[in-house]
Amino acid sequence: MTTATAGPTVRPAETDAMRRALELAATDGLVLGPNPRVGCVLLDADGATIAEGFHRGAGTPHAETVALANARAAAGPDAARGATAVVTLEPCAHTGRTGPCAQALVDAGVGRVVFAQPDPNLVATGGGALLHAAGVDVVGGVLGDEARTLNAVWTRAMELGRPVVTWKVAASLDGRTAAADGTSRWITSAAARADVHRLRASCDTVLVGTGTVAADDPSLTVRDADLTGPQPLRAVMGRRELPPSSRLAVPADDGTETLHLRTHDPREALEALWAADRRHVLLEGGATLAAAFWRAGLVDEMVAYVAPVLLGAGPAAVGDLGITTIAGAARLDVVDVALLAAGTPGTPGTAGADGRADAGPTETNVRLTLRPRKES
Amino acid sequence: MTTATAGPTVRPAETDAMRRALELAATDGLVLGPNPRVGCVLLDADGATIAEGFHRGAGTPHAETVALANARAAAGPDAARGATAVVTLEPCAHTGRTGPCAQALVDAGVGRVVFAQPDPNLVATGGGALLHAAGVDVVGGVLGDEARTLNAVWTRAMELGRPVVTWKVAASLDGRTAAADGTSRWITSAAARADVHRLRASCDTVLVGTGTVAADDPSLTVRDADLTGPQPLRAVMGRRELPPSSRLAVPADDGTETLHLRTHDPREALEALWAADRRHVLLEGGATLAAAFWRAGLVDEMVAYVAPVLLGAGPAAVGDLGITTIAGAARLDVVDVALLAAGTPGTPGTAGADGRADAGPTETNVRLTLRPRKES
Repeated sequence: MTTATAGPTVRPAETDAMRRALELAATDGLVLGPNPRVGCVLLDADGATIAEGFHRGAGTPHAETVALANARAAAGPDAARGATAVVTLEPCAHTGRTGPCAQALVDAGVGRVVFAQPDPNLVATGGGALLHAAGVDVVGGVLGDEARTLNAVWTRAMELGRPVVTWKVAASLDGRTAAADGTSRWITSAAARADVHRLRASCDTVLVGTGTVAADDPSLTVRDADLTGPQPLRAVMGRRELPPSSRLAVPADDGTETLHLRTHDPREALEALWAADRRHVLLEGGATLAAAFWRAGLVDEMVAYVAPVLLGAGPAAVGDLGITTIAGAARLDVVDVALLAAGTPGTPGTAGADGRADAGPTETNVRLTLRPRKES
Repeated sequence: MTTATAGPTVRPAETDAMRRALELAATDGLVLGPNPRVGCVLLDADGATIAEGFHRGAGTPHAETVALANARAAAGPDAARGATAVVTLEPCAHTGRTGPCAQALVDAGVGRVVFAQPDPNLVATGGGALLHAAGVDVVGGVLGDEARTLNAVWTRAMELGRPVVTWKVAASLDGRTAAADGTSRWITSAAARADVHRLRASCDTVLVGTGTVAADDPSLTVRDADLTGPQPLRAVMGRRELPPSSRLAVPADDGTETLHLRTHDPREALEALWAADRRHVLLEGGATLAAAFWRAGLVDEMVAYVAPVLLGAGPAAVGDLGITTIAGAARLDVVDVALLAAGTPGTPGTAGADGRADAGPTETNVRLTLRPRKES
């Protein structure tokens, strides 16, 4: 980074404008695809707002471009000359579906750029340096934590250079996903299952193994949660063919085909999903698939739904992790604990879209959100 | 019950006296043994306090007897004539180590008795009827819920006619109590293990199977928690002899011998423990023993310590419960969820009394308290 850090050079009007830019970035109902939330405010020399803009998602103009266009529409081609651009993310230096924003700001005659979060994108980064080289005054890190939080998963994915992986487990208190005879409807409560739909809706990909398709024939769609964008991509991993009669063998209601990743290597699967612009994969089953991701160090978060149910026998929720002795135990940190009780908002009482009865146990379930401990 | 329920006949001074009697009953530091907490206040005709008393535990006088003695000591043999006795528990009609309190109240000339909780003791009950038959005015149920709560486990045990059974499980998130090679120190955190000592201290008996003695050689003593009374009785169930070198084969520091229950029948074991004046048994292991209690319908509460640890292999925390299909799943209700974090008061950082290092993982553990759902 060749840019200065936030300090006494940042004016109160610029910090205020950054808060406004964060608000704009957080606009409800956007369909962002693989892109981050970004807001931009253009200020004149007195700190008054010239124009605003925010990014509406992949394939649409970036926040800076929108703000510049709004400024020109209001006050002519030189509207932004000498202005200060306040942006929640370091302007990009990359020509993708849109031109580089850093260059657009230079071309518009912007004199100063204040941004919040440095661009974690290995491809697009360099915008601050480009602006600096062009003689623009550049300050980064203003409300940087707030901006990072706004795009937490996207940021993590950019830093990792692969989709963030959340492993979902739903099991009995004794760690089983089905009874001895294989029956499993229902272990978790309706409220817990509704919460899984909310979790799915927060990811852009749902991934299972071919074994789970054969055994459970899941539909993997978001049914019982608000979904502002498209359904998450349904992905299946493994070399086996999908049974032609399986729910995942036919396109979803919106026409989207299931992505079949013909590999057993989690890293290859994530590369393919990254290439397909995926940022957040929900690992939904089965135990063997999840264990493969765990062993490869490719689980970033675990969400465990624990039902107050004992089975005493039946398939284990967690497969062989290659752990033989306690010193090798996989240790996590509890990030959050939530009780999912009957009557939780969004709890369904009727059959889901695929005809399954969604009623079921009413006991309070416990949701644990955990993060793997990094080796020290 | 031949006694009236609480109603308009109860004077405010009597309700106030009942609150005071509950306070007396709840006196800290009592060593109650198998007996309940009981408090008593004697009021004169104007509602002024004549004397107070409370029960200090098995082998000592009952609360009413103490209050009557205090009254006599202060104001002579007729001090309680025409008085109202306000007692947290229905006066007993049973001659045990002390005479029946109901008769003592009649003999003292008490004119009215107000009590809170009806005596759930199948042997001692009938005190209200005895008083009524003797011409004493009797009212029951005044602050009855508060009184029941004060002696919740004792009440439950009296109603069941056997000790209350709490099943403790400490396991990894995937329901395992050891790694594949049998090592298990430590899965749960130091804070969780300190909490187990508090749980032990709240029970009067700790029960394990002979298999656990052979495998783990536990000491089963309360080490890291305040203990006002004696150590819980250490009991072992099963026909195998205890290894002579095992910690349980020698008397505890206070000289108490381990009780060896030479049976595999949970009901027989509880009968023997009941005969030994035990009211609250903590089932500490192993999985087979706990499963036998569960299958016999003899688990009243479950306390599960869940460590944010994955093992993927190793012995299961819950043994075969005879459940083959999901419809037969054992369902419980979550009564309480607590996070046990490093730094929790009472967390040890040093070796315990038996020389074991008590340090260990520092991750936050989750404690679930559950109750089996009754068949409907």
